[in-house]
Amino acid sequence: MNAVVSKEIRLVSRPVGMPTLENFELAEVTMPDLAEGQILLCNRWLTVDPYMRGRMYDTKSYVPPFQIGEALQGGAIGEVVESRNDAFPTGTFVNHMDGWREYAITDGAMLQKVDPDLAPLQTYLGAMGMPGLTAYGGLLTIGQPKEGETVFVSAASGAVGQLVCQIAKLKGCRVVGSAGGKEKCDWLTEVAGIDAAVDYKACANQEELQAAVAAVCPDGIDIYFENVGGDHLITALNLANPWARFPMCGTISSYNAMEKPDGIWNLFNVIGKRIRMEGFISFDYIGMAEDFTRDMSGWIKSGDIKLKEDVIEGVENTPQAFLNLFTGGNFGKMLVKLD
Amino acid sequence: MNAVVSKEIRLVSRPVGMPTLENFELAEVTMPDLAEGQILLCNRWLTVDPYMRGRMYDTKSYVPPFQIGEALQGGAIGEVVESRNDAFPTGTFVNHMDGWREYAITDGAMLQKVDPDLAPLQTYLGAMGMPGLTAYGGLLTIGQPKEGETVFVSAASGAVGQLVCQIAKLKGCRVVGSAGGKEKCDWLTEVAGIDAAVDYKACANQEELQAAVAAVCPDGIDIYFENVGGDHLITALNLANPWARFPMCGTISSYNAMEKPDGIWNLFNVIGKRIRMEGFISFDYIGMAEDFTRDMSGWIKSGDIKLKEDVIEGVENTPQAFLNLFTGGNFGKMLVKLD
Repeated sequence: MNAVVSKEIRLVSRPVGMPTLENFELAEVTMPDLAEGQILLCNRWLTVDPYMRGRMYDTKSYVPPFQIGEALQGGAIGEVVESRNDAFPTGTFVNHMDGWREYAITDGAMLQKVDPDLAPLQTYLGAMGMPGLTAYGGLLTIGQPKEGETVFVSAASGAVGQLVCQIAKLKGCRVVGSAGGKEKCDWLTEVAGIDAAVDYKACANQEELQAAVAAVCPDGIDIYFENVGGDHLITALNLANPWARFPMCGTISSYNAMEKPDGIWNLFNVIGKRIRMEGFISFDYIGMAEDFTRDMSGWIKSGDIKLKEDVIEGVENTPQAFLNLFTGGNFGKMLVKLD
Repeated sequence: MNAVVSKEIRLVSRPVGMPTLENFELAEVTMPDLAEGQILLCNRWLTVDPYMRGRMYDTKSYVPPFQIGEALQGGAIGEVVESRNDAFPTGTFVNHMDGWREYAITDGAMLQKVDPDLAPLQTYLGAMGMPGLTAYGGLLTIGQPKEGETVFVSAASGAVGQLVCQIAKLKGCRVVGSAGGKEKCDWLTEVAGIDAAVDYKACANQEELQAAVAAVCPDGIDIYFENVGGDHLITALNLANPWARFPMCGTISSYNAMEKPDGIWNLFNVIGKRIRMEGFISFDYIGMAEDFTRDMSGWIKSGDIKLKEDVIEGVENTPQAFLNLFTGGNFGKMLVKLD
């Protein structure tokens, strides 16, 4: 077998503020021969996710920072194309963290086999994977949705938000989502079936956003699923009902901030209204994985949950796919498809 | 019996920003004769508390706003001096909400008898009363202190803070408090027995406050008991450990804000660190009242908890006592003693 050449995306400089294509470079590496116990993975799908922006800063967090000059990492679905490990025969599909590249060699540790019959391969990077567990765990564990309650979801057509919206509907809630632009809002109400959608890009300021959300939340907000921060969080604090729960999943509006963001000036609402704000990341819900996989695969198969994916082709376009996350340039779960 | 004349404090205008003495007026009313079932209370102690500032705004909250031209309300310890209600014979002491005045007539509803043998009368407005239940319920229920954890308390020598500090010590925690000035800080370390105190008035800005707190919290912060807001909250978010709990009791730094306060710009910490911020008010812990009364009276009698009270005499000085809360002019639980 001829030596395999793999294209990969490397971080060449740490973004200051909004990342640009210049922060990344395409490189080629020749894959070495496999040692005993190793497998060669050919990636079929890559994912880009907002949390990766945090790893581009040189600061300690719950995951270590990316290193300059090295290939980036992230979730990927790979097919075993060569194997010296009996546990992973050729043709096996696995979910792993050596994304942003075409090929990867591994000894089989930290891999999860995925079943293409249970759900389409790429959904293991979305609804059936980390974003799905994030939505499922955060909404059900912190949000504790009850029938008839009102759930407000920001970034509602995004990878996590679209699932939160539809799980909340399945739990009998009134669901209101915010998204940027009419196309996304229409998808939310017409396809995902939520009760109302607010186009935040049509709101000139926080007051307008609040008025638009209030108009479709006549009974206030019982759960705010936070993906955005900033004006969305201020709005949710002002409109929250007593004993509201705020699963705090992300604050994408501040990920590229070069200065201190304006800040949340109305946290006093937390006290009088007894709001519970609680941060979480998907790892926290690994213990729910079995329930999650059963429920989510069932909902996808039954059509109770509709998936919106945004697919770009070619590893060389992974940086652009990533940048789209911060401009609202994506519509649905952002994925990169490789041949 | 001659007609009883009672002095009372009325709200004559709603404060804009920091309240002033001009927002209040002293008035006299002649108490009517008692109807069957009524009692006449002579107040011995009045309390002023930060939450009362909220009731001076004309906005809906968990308690209705004070009305212009009417006597203010608030906790008081009264003695029954005339009774047409067998349940409350003359000489009975009760905790009730007709404060800011010398005398009150009531039918006995919403009164709590207090036992002067269990604890000094005025403590039923402090450690044995609402501020005590606030400290006990918020720290134990939301804070969930574990031995060896670090607890940071703002407004640490105040009515609630001084109790949070000492309960946390009793639970085996390392306790750090912030207070304004050397005298308060010395009391905290030397009398209340906490591990370290930070004089926030000696810090020029948030960065200095954070450096001072970090220096005495080498293992980070596991619980932040929030009484202040603003720079204190920013500091606690930055220094919090993973899975930290923030009982949100008050944000006194913003109660008189005339414009939007600067805002909390670092809430992203809530996510990566999985911080739980939860608002509460004392009423929420009424169900703990029996345990609370037993524990707190025991701790006061044993000397495990030292009480710091700041006493002003005369109903006419109640507005000044109230204003002191917002300037740090009080040192300990602010009380008004009547003859």
